[in-house]
Amino acid sequence: MPEILFAAPDRLWPAYEEHLARELAARGIDARLRRPGEVAPETVDYLIYAPGGAVSDFTPFVRARAVLSLWAGVERIIANPTLTQPLTRMVDPGLTEGMVEWVTGHVLRAHLGIDAHLAGQDGVWRNGIVPPLARERGVTVLGLGALGSAAARMLAALNFRVTGWSARPKAIDGVACLAGPAQLPAALARAEILVLLLPQTPETVDLMDARRLAMLPKGAVILNPGRGSLIDEAALLAALETGQVAQATLDVFRTEPLPPEHPFWAHPRVTVTPHVAAETRPVSAAGVIAENIARDRAGLPLLHLVDRARGY
Amino acid sequence: MPEILFAAPDRLWPAYEEHLARELAARGIDARLRRPGEVAPETVDYLIYAPGGAVSDFTPFVRARAVLSLWAGVERIIANPTLTQPLTRMVDPGLTEGMVEWVTGHVLRAHLGIDAHLAGQDGVWRNGIVPPLARERGVTVLGLGALGSAAARMLAALNFRVTGWSARPKAIDGVACLAGPAQLPAALARAEILVLLLPQTPETVDLMDARRLAMLPKGAVILNPGRGSLIDEAALLAALETGQVAQATLDVFRTEPLPPEHPFWAHPRVTVTPHVAAETRPVSAAGVIAENIARDRAGLPLLHLVDRARGY
Repeated sequence: MPEILFAAPDRLWPAYEEHLARELAARGIDARLRRPGEVAPETVDYLIYAPGGAVSDFTPFVRARAVLSLWAGVERIIANPTLTQPLTRMVDPGLTEGMVEWVTGHVLRAHLGIDAHLAGQDGVWRNGIVPPLARERGVTVLGLGALGSAAARMLAALNFRVTGWSARPKAIDGVACLAGPAQLPAALARAEILVLLLPQTPETVDLMDARRLAMLPKGAVILNPGRGSLIDEAALLAALETGQVAQATLDVFRTEPLPPEHPFWAHPRVTVTPHVAAETRPVSAAGVIAENIARDRAGLPLLHLVDRARGY
Repeated sequence: MPEILFAAPDRLWPAYEEHLARELAARGIDARLRRPGEVAPETVDYLIYAPGGAVSDFTPFVRARAVLSLWAGVERIIANPTLTQPLTRMVDPGLTEGMVEWVTGHVLRAHLGIDAHLAGQDGVWRNGIVPPLARERGVTVLGLGALGSAAARMLAALNFRVTGWSARPKAIDGVACLAGPAQLPAALARAEILVLLLPQTPETVDLMDARRLAMLPKGAVILNPGRGSLIDEAALLAALETGQVAQATLDVFRTEPLPPEHPFWAHPRVTVTPHVAAETRPVSAAGVIAENIARDRAGLPLLHLVDRARGY
């Protein structure tokens, strides 16, 4: 009977307990689901992990077959030198759906000029300009993992002229896929609307610096639901001043919650959303965790295994 | 050599002249494209029509084989007793695309609570609530013509729980299709977000009156990119007061431009967009007109012929 340790912050336990028990039972796994302090580390078979919980030293978990992350982003745990066990990322279908909805909604908000309509409720009928169709609008998605490729596909279904860019070559129907550092300038040049969905790695930190921001078409809109560290904040603020970037909608930040005094909050051309684009949903995430445990019990390889050389 | 009269308002001529000439030539039609006053009515073969132009009496056009409307809505022309010639509606692929984009953008705006995010740029990090996924959100589309069915399909692709309703039964993959007066209450009961894309007919005028508004779930959001007359305005304002309707975004009105003193402009829970959802795009609409003329020259039936008994 495997011992499973819920090594995530206490506040998450009520949301996950019932779903995990149900999903494990549904797969015929008669497990003991434990909380920190309820089990000796050396007897634990699997850890369900999220940053901020009681476990920060993985050394005593000598028997653990895997650390199963509840979050998609694993940059905080991967830097932990005590972690030698296999690590899996969360690839939650609910998380992907939520991300596609956030990205599509904010791309359409920019495309349709919804903010200007909301600000123009003054009795003046401004219908002189026929807005461009999506098929005339260039949108670039940086990062073509599970989230980026799903978002790019949906934007292509809406007829946007979608360019995707990733570290290594990908192919997605309806999306012009570019890859590698040499093709990044071309991907940025097509980005009337830019969506950042890259993982955080040494290569992607501050990727959108002053030089890269200058490669965007004048007046580009930036959406960042990926990682706060992808953007050089001072460079973004400068690009907003010159109009090189017309608007930015940011869901992730280097420090969260974003401090009240941070200039993004009060900036008239920045919209802050409080890390809502990719919420892991316990109802679906519990099934992903249980499925991976079931696979390991059956001798099958773990899904969504993190490649430490790549960093995700 | 057919004579074609551009019987639409003068202001539209510059946008259409070049596209019409090119699309006619592309189909091998050697036509004379005329403006009012340049041709005797009894020699005109086809009229390209939009309300507000020089032609309001169709009696002298004894030779005309068709009146080709530039607009999708034909309620203003169909009431004209002098019109005995065949009448076609505009079914512009650009118009359909633009409508799908407007509907999807404003459905996602309501679904994601974008207005609350825009209003909440005050430094307070409000991420306590995990928003529902589209698959948990009921959206109902009233009207399943070219525009309504395309919008319903896209909303279904985004995983919304989409119900469609139309006067006569339709079938659309991924959409629960209801039909006829008896099933309207069920369609309304599922509408956390309601999209109005019905044509204006005697049956649809004031369809959304106090009784029908009361059939919506409490706090429903209404989007009207269809026809202004579909909604009883006083009943909508009353339903906004009680919270029965939480928000309305309206693109069409009984009087356009919407007068500056109209209460919709200043209402905190009404967004006015100035008839931008379904702009006919000259680049694509000219091709539709030319194609219909080419069909008629070749002895083929006209596309998008209006059924006067139905009213659209």
